[in-house]
Amino acid sequence: MACGLVWAQAGDDSKAATSNVPGAQYPRIQPDLRITFRVNAPAAQKVQVKPGGDGLGKGPYDMVRDDKGVWTVTTPPAAPGFHYYFLLVDGFQCNDPGSQTYFGWNTETSGVEVPDRVDFYGAKEVPHGEVRARWYWSKTTGQWRPAYVYTPPDYDQSGSKRYPVLYLQHGSGENETSWVKQGRVSFILDNLIAAKRAAPMIVVMENGMVATKAGEGGRGNGAFEEVVISDLIPMIDATYRTVADREQRAIAGLSMGAGQAMQIGLGHLDKFAYIGSFSGGVRASDPKTAYNGVLADAAAFRKKVKLLWMGAGIAEAASHQATQAWHEALEKAGIPNVFFECPFAHEWQTWRYDLQDFAPRLFR
Amino acid sequence: MACGLVWAQAGDDSKAATSNVPGAQYPRIQPDLRITFRVNAPAAQKVQVKPGGDGLGKGPYDMVRDDKGVWTVTTPPAAPGFHYYFLLVDGFQCNDPGSQTYFGWNTETSGVEVPDRVDFYGAKEVPHGEVRARWYWSKTTGQWRPAYVYTPPDYDQSGSKRYPVLYLQHGSGENETSWVKQGRVSFILDNLIAAKRAAPMIVVMENGMVATKAGEGGRGNGAFEEVVISDLIPMIDATYRTVADREQRAIAGLSMGAGQAMQIGLGHLDKFAYIGSFSGGVRASDPKTAYNGVLADAAAFRKKVKLLWMGAGIAEAASHQATQAWHEALEKAGIPNVFFECPFAHEWQTWRYDLQDFAPRLFR
Repeated sequence: MACGLVWAQAGDDSKAATSNVPGAQYPRIQPDLRITFRVNAPAAQKVQVKPGGDGLGKGPYDMVRDDKGVWTVTTPPAAPGFHYYFLLVDGFQCNDPGSQTYFGWNTETSGVEVPDRVDFYGAKEVPHGEVRARWYWSKTTGQWRPAYVYTPPDYDQSGSKRYPVLYLQHGSGENETSWVKQGRVSFILDNLIAAKRAAPMIVVMENGMVATKAGEGGRGNGAFEEVVISDLIPMIDATYRTVADREQRAIAGLSMGAGQAMQIGLGHLDKFAYIGSFSGGVRASDPKTAYNGVLADAAAFRKKVKLLWMGAGIAEAASHQATQAWHEALEKAGIPNVFFECPFAHEWQTWRYDLQDFAPRLFR
Repeated sequence: MACGLVWAQAGDDSKAATSNVPGAQYPRIQPDLRITFRVNAPAAQKVQVKPGGDGLGKGPYDMVRDDKGVWTVTTPPAAPGFHYYFLLVDGFQCNDPGSQTYFGWNTETSGVEVPDRVDFYGAKEVPHGEVRARWYWSKTTGQWRPAYVYTPPDYDQSGSKRYPVLYLQHGSGENETSWVKQGRVSFILDNLIAAKRAAPMIVVMENGMVATKAGEGGRGNGAFEEVVISDLIPMIDATYRTVADREQRAIAGLSMGAGQAMQIGLGHLDKFAYIGSFSGGVRASDPKTAYNGVLADAAAFRKKVKLLWMGAGIAEAASHQATQAWHEALEKAGIPNVFFECPFAHEWQTWRYDLQDFAPRLFR
């Protein structure tokens, strides 16, 4: 048993976060969404909680030591949704052993799930799809790489039926697991499909942080575009029962992944008819010249693109403003597009809401 | 970028461990299998590396601070294979931000992969199966639970072909992800199947740490037995193209999971014909009375059970001795069984070797 972990329960109405490791009683969510963090660190001089996202407030929050060396702090009320966080133990940034880890900030990071008033992303009594780890060879990177593939609930039972595909990307410092763990993509799709609000579809998630040299991390958007176009799409169409047609293929992503979705989607309209940008990836420049001029002829664009969708959280002011300006410039230029707002910050709750609005508009 | 992480490379023949997060240069494996750990913790008073398994030596290893606050230590040569470890930062047990996390010791734990002379568990140029996260409702626990299901490479292309199933369990403090991440089950099976050394099979992994009360962790072997028999097997047989027959069903596990495999397998010979115990789960008592007397009638047992397989590492002396004694007692009692030895400790390298010997003996 890890020594920093606290297993004893609090005597109040708080509840252990669902993002904790099994049995860990801290962090705990208070009824008013304050969060109580607690760790056991008798020999440390200073212990703090450092938020890794806006919804937890600014921090860092200094924890207070009791006479046994157990450190506690209760934060102000947090925003609903998933928030990354770290501990600072005598200044060293590390995980809370009470939390599961989530890949973010380029490493394995603690996270805390704060309940919302709605729960469209929980495991419900509906048919469930699967998330499959599919290893494949990428010629572009010279690596075996894992793609994560959501297949809808009826996939194994539907004989020769073929499905449309959404390529869905994470943000900077995250990876192919992030939409599954932080984003709850499978539960969002399961619930939408069960309610007949979205078409049964395959969702493909890959790692957009493509190394530019072997052994290096890095952004490498050009390399990622080549992975998607030359390696990933052909593998997916050869491996799964897809409809290998632009009108049955969508691409979307969040933050850095929004930029990739716009770049890859608008750069390959022979491959994609639906494009989604969640919190970023907009260039508020002239629609006539942006993206190599693909938007210049509005009539031609309208014929080709079935959906151009952009979302932003109201609490991420800069991204929201830029997206709204781009939305208006596009409208003015005769390019139809959806601008979706939700109340949250540059965090996963925004992107869950985005997906819930975006997915029902696909493949109709 | 997490502040504790070290990205700069060493100027020697060492290599960043494959278990690191992308881009992290430490821990590094030296050619003689010494391991160099390095973290950036300027404000800490003391930083140590604490092994979480025997193959890294006893430790903890005190790291040495340079004038910039970067701490380094090089261990003695490590055993090949996967080893859990922790950092102790001023006594606080936490993860190394340079390492991926692996569920062990009841929490998310750092790990370091040390190369062996053989690599039967690597991703090779062979057809790859999938590992699928399958959420299902357990009446026993009143939870949606994820089972991890390996399907062999040809599963989606083989029409109505049906497959045998191996139920494969992790050890204490681990979970359904452990055989995938630490154990490399999918690559071991992919490689064995490609070499025609093992029959294509489905492998099912669930979480054997079944809570006895809602919200609690714990062992709950009785509860887990009920999950397997009443919930998991019926779900798997209804969801996948299995042969729902005892002669096409195996159960195995490691350490705590070995005990569960023996208890569940020997307790339900109507359901299992192949049983494997990896590093544990043996009761060196009288074969006449052990396991409710199911071994008492050797002739009847021989007719029913196609394989009773027990493995132990030579470097886990107590387990090895107990397993060998039980093996000999069973032989003497006329119960055929396989006793498999490999040179390693109570760690994942032993269990990878175990699986590589065990899987080819199934479903023949």
